[in-house]
Amino acid sequence: MNKKINLLVFSGEYDKALAALIIANSAKELGADVTMFFAFWGLLLVRNPETSISDDKSIYEKMFGMMTPKGPEELPLSKMNFSGIGKEMLKAMMKEEDAPELTDFLKGARKKGVKFYGCKLSVDVMGFKNEELIPELEIIDAKEYLKDALESDMQLFI
Amino acid sequence: MNKKINLLVFSGEYDKALAALIIANSAKELGADVTMFFAFWGLLLVRNPETSISDDKSIYEKMFGMMTPKGPEELPLSKMNFSGIGKEMLKAMMKEEDAPELTDFLKGARKKGVKFYGCKLSVDVMGFKNEELIPELEIIDAKEYLKDALESDMQLFI
Amino acid sequence: MNKKINLLVFSGEYDKALAALIIANSAKELGADVTMFFAFWGLLLVRNPETSISDDKSIYEKMFGMMTPKGPEELPLSKMNFSGIGKEMLKAMMKEEDAPELTDFLKGARKKGVKFYGCKLSVDVMGFKNEELIPELEIIDAKEYLKDALESDMQLFI
Repeated sequence: MNKKINLLVFSGEYDKALAALIIANSAKELGADVTMFFAFWGLLLVRNPETSISDDKSIYEKMFGMMTPKGPEELPLSKMNFSGIGKEMLKAMMKEEDAPELTDFLKGARKKGVKFYGCKLSVDVMGFKNEELIPELEIIDAKEYLKDALESDMQLFI
Repeated sequence: MNKKINLLVFSGEYDKALAALIIANSAKELGADVTMFFAFWGLLLVRNPETSISDDKSIYEKMFGMMTPKGPEELPLSKMNFSGIGKEMLKAMMKEEDAPELTDFLKGARKKGVKFYGCKLSVDVMGFKNEELIPELEIIDAKEYLKDALESDMQLFI
Repeated sequence: MNKKINLLVFSGEYDKALAALIIANSAKELGADVTMFFAFWGLLLVRNPETSISDDKSIYEKMFGMMTPKGPEELPLSKMNFSGIGKEMLKAMMKEEDAPELTDFLKGARKKGVKFYGCKLSVDVMGFKNEELIPELEIIDAKEYLKDALESDMQLFI
């Protein structure tokens, strides 16, 4: 399939990240090109859970780094999260259906060659250092995002 | 108008459902083809309010069925819901303008021949049985959604 | 760049409005045509902060006008708002990076000739009078929005 899909992932929520990654994986399996552009809260999905928070940050950036989810499995649900109980319930329901977890879908997308971009302004404002984000993530600005999106056959804001 | 529109309805909120259905109805009136693909919380909009919750479910699925809105009019607002008071205020304001209700827009979309799809994984995970969802809803997977979306002139994630 | 972008701004949140306006400004700088269609909560972004609430309203409309943000800088964050503390933190972090404020991006979009549309049904239901909204805003209905969106190379629902 000679098609190209561009997903702007703005939301840092477990269920929306799941939707974005299921679309990305399915599109790759159909042979389409897929770009995911992570901006704002979406960056929380591509934090590297294996590195600790860099010391080279302003006070605000340190506070922000500590107060926000450290990778995919810590993201909350967009509704019915109930301090995490709702999310655990959803995860148990997914397990009952043998559905993969969010982390698996993220691994799948990385392995299948989904192109990962991070929004430069968001990275700067949130104070993320390169080593705090997954290594595939290439930092680009809004204009580069737009050029990629305008070359695509389908664009979603998630 | 020889155009095709694909709406992925992810959110289970009254105001967003209203937006999606107003777009779908207006597009049909312009002569366009319209597909609505209901995933995750979006499925709550196409629950059949006339059937009760099936007994053939796991504990989690039963709890989930009971805790979530049972059809369009029970959906909350995405903001200013205030335990339903905000929504009643919005509905009163819509009535002042003689605007149709969400249920009317849903009926309109069904009558006008909007194509309704439900996301297979979401239906399985949430444990919905066929009779708990409106009869027009055809269950498809993410790849079938993508094929339909990529044939469309416009795609939105709502 | 001979391209056209259509953004439906539904959300009345600071961070999402920022995303929408950064895309709009960047697209204009690339030479693309940009339309922003403000519906529902999105209208709160294009309230004119310099005019007071009209007296010619129903009780509900007056209450609604008073309870909702009066222009861009009053919009809450979509998450981590913490009664405004989270938003002030984000604004301080943006200042550290010398990033413009939401108001600046809105001014930029107005100056660069982004086309501003407001959703007729939303304006009627919320009871906004013309002078309560920024003067560039042209009120159109869902069908006119769809015609513009279908002529565009890219459409997002924000």
